[in-house]
Amino acid sequence: MTTDTAGTVHVEGHTAEPGRPGEPGEGLEAADILASARTLVDPELRRAIETLPGSLRRVALYHFGWEHADGTPAAGSAGKAIRPALVLTAARALGGDPAAAVRAAAAVELVHNFTLLHDDVMDRDTTRRHRPTAWTVFGDADAILTGDALQALAQRMLAEDPHPGAPAAAARLATCVMELCAGQHADCALERRGPDEVTLDECLATAEAKTGALLGCACALGAVYAGADLDEVDSLDGFGREAGLAFQLIDDVIGIWGDPRRTGKPAGADLAARKKSLPVVAALASGTPAAAELAELYDRPPTGTESAPERAEHAARAAGAVERAGGRDWAQVHAADRMSRAIGQLAGAVPDPEAAGGLLALAEFVTRRTY
Amino acid sequence: MTTDTAGTVHVEGHTAEPGRPGEPGEGLEAADILASARTLVDPELRRAIETLPGSLRRVALYHFGWEHADGTPAAGSAGKAIRPALVLTAARALGGDPAAAVRAAAAVELVHNFTLLHDDVMDRDTTRRHRPTAWTVFGDADAILTGDALQALAQRMLAEDPHPGAPAAAARLATCVMELCAGQHADCALERRGPDEVTLDECLATAEAKTGALLGCACALGAVYAGADLDEVDSLDGFGREAGLAFQLIDDVIGIWGDPRRTGKPAGADLAARKKSLPVVAALASGTPAAAELAELYDRPPTGTESAPERAEHAARAAGAVERAGGRDWAQVHAADRMSRAIGQLAGAVPDPEAAGGLLALAEFVTRRTY
Repeated sequence: MTTDTAGTVHVEGHTAEPGRPGEPGEGLEAADILASARTLVDPELRRAIETLPGSLRRVALYHFGWEHADGTPAAGSAGKAIRPALVLTAARALGGDPAAAVRAAAAVELVHNFTLLHDDVMDRDTTRRHRPTAWTVFGDADAILTGDALQALAQRMLAEDPHPGAPAAAARLATCVMELCAGQHADCALERRGPDEVTLDECLATAEAKTGALLGCACALGAVYAGADLDEVDSLDGFGREAGLAFQLIDDVIGIWGDPRRTGKPAGADLAARKKSLPVVAALASGTPAAAELAELYDRPPTGTESAPERAEHAARAAGAVERAGGRDWAQVHAADRMSRAIGQLAGAVPDPEAAGGLLALAEFVTRRTY
Repeated sequence: MTTDTAGTVHVEGHTAEPGRPGEPGEGLEAADILASARTLVDPELRRAIETLPGSLRRVALYHFGWEHADGTPAAGSAGKAIRPALVLTAARALGGDPAAAVRAAAAVELVHNFTLLHDDVMDRDTTRRHRPTAWTVFGDADAILTGDALQALAQRMLAEDPHPGAPAAAARLATCVMELCAGQHADCALERRGPDEVTLDECLATAEAKTGALLGCACALGAVYAGADLDEVDSLDGFGREAGLAFQLIDDVIGIWGDPRRTGKPAGADLAARKKSLPVVAALASGTPAAAELAELYDRPPTGTESAPERAEHAARAAGAVERAGGRDWAQVHAADRMSRAIGQLAGAVPDPEAAGGLLALAEFVTRRTY
């Protein structure tokens, strides 16, 4: 895997596979898949959210970017819809009808957003998708309650779906929620520990539970809705998990070196908050002089009184140390490794490269984002 | 309805109904029903909680009273199991087999406990069932995450239940969660407003959403599992809601005049916190001199620096004012009225008094508690 001058990450070794994205007319280009998933899933999502009690509906509409805080309509930017797109594309890859899996796709997106609402409260994160987080606008209680209601909405959508795969999908989604919660617990626990008390394996396991689990579940639900057997469903879960790890690694790289106009978060915010992202922990574990420098920077707790230039300087020094300690390279190589594993899992369940093309396109898309 | 010298509330007008509890040998005595529900449901609950990821399992076992904070086994006092008992008893009343509804009963209890965990975080309540609340022991994040996981566990239990009523029960339970969340939102909003800015109707609607909805849902799920038709299910829901309102009214009375050794909460805690419980709001709305006195007491925000005797004196004066303003009498009369409505709803679906006996016994039990 290499990074070009524009900062685009290229994952080598499978870009020449048949069914690869970007061929005009194939309909497999990731942006097309994402846009078409949005078109299918958004009406279902909005219909569901309209059924929430008014007090919570307002918070949900704000969180999804469909309303401003004052309740006036907003253009809307409810994220990239990667998870719903994975559900629909996995259903198609296993020979199912994506249109029949729309409720499952919407349910996964509802669960994703329930966890975002709650995680932002716990992490005290103030910005999401370029806007103030829900708890900063409506308070902790309303953000917690709206998250609770979105989880319920996701499960009701599956409980009311007459599709024969719905009960198995509901059980799998519920199990995934428990893993997501355990992942968030582990993440909070890691953040409370000192920089020298955290191992890379722990951080990878946490990222798998926090991010990989839901991407895996999304793919698995698509397979369930296609009527796939349990082995195929589990392979699709594995594909999504591994791709999710690659996604998280690249996301962490973008969190350090990305353009805040694209990430929607202030530059260096994660470093300024001493977040133990994967490139940082890899750098800390490298045994290099830069690792010691980084540990020293991370050991100074933020005082809360630094000026913006002081924060930016701290973040820039930390970013430099992560890079010199090899954290950035490690993250990119490890992301490529996870992508290979993902492709291996996928090939087990979907040997036909053409059928697998859409899922590969999505997986490549999330690890090829420019920053 | 009258209150005897021991403080027992008697709801008049239906104690002579056939099938009334307390007849030896009938098996309908509320305490027996509750104990037998615990025996059936506890193993299912514990099995479910054992499947949680370790970090959250620990919090859940503590919350349910099965472990101390340090992880050593505790005798356990996981509440009265009224909701699971309502599920099983409603199933029996509609001609179903209670044993077949055990998962539904456990799911309702899981949802109840998920909302307790979250409500305690939002309300900053420090005591529950005679013990420190989970957030005070494990922190806000773990209490929120464990609540999230318990909701997921409840839904997984229904999703994996092959009973033909399970999907309808899952949908109904999810809808109930949304109502519970809206109720908690309304409750938080009421608590932020001044004592003269709150109407009794608003408080009753809030109590119905916060408490009545889940008692109604418990009864409805029992009916669903018995294969009842939708009209019967809705009548059972109505029965549980009305009985739930009666329960809340009596609970509020106990919260003011109850014995802290029995309630598990410090004496006068709700009054000291200026909680707008139903007897308080009824008293405030009475237009009496005592109402003005109570409003004046509630208008003084707690400073947080009062001594225990100062807090106790404030609570005692407020309790006296509520009583003189008629708040206590109103709550007891209104509880009796709700019980009549509950009985009316039940009679519509279960005309045979013998079949209805168990549900009546439970409803009377919760409104006849001594304090």
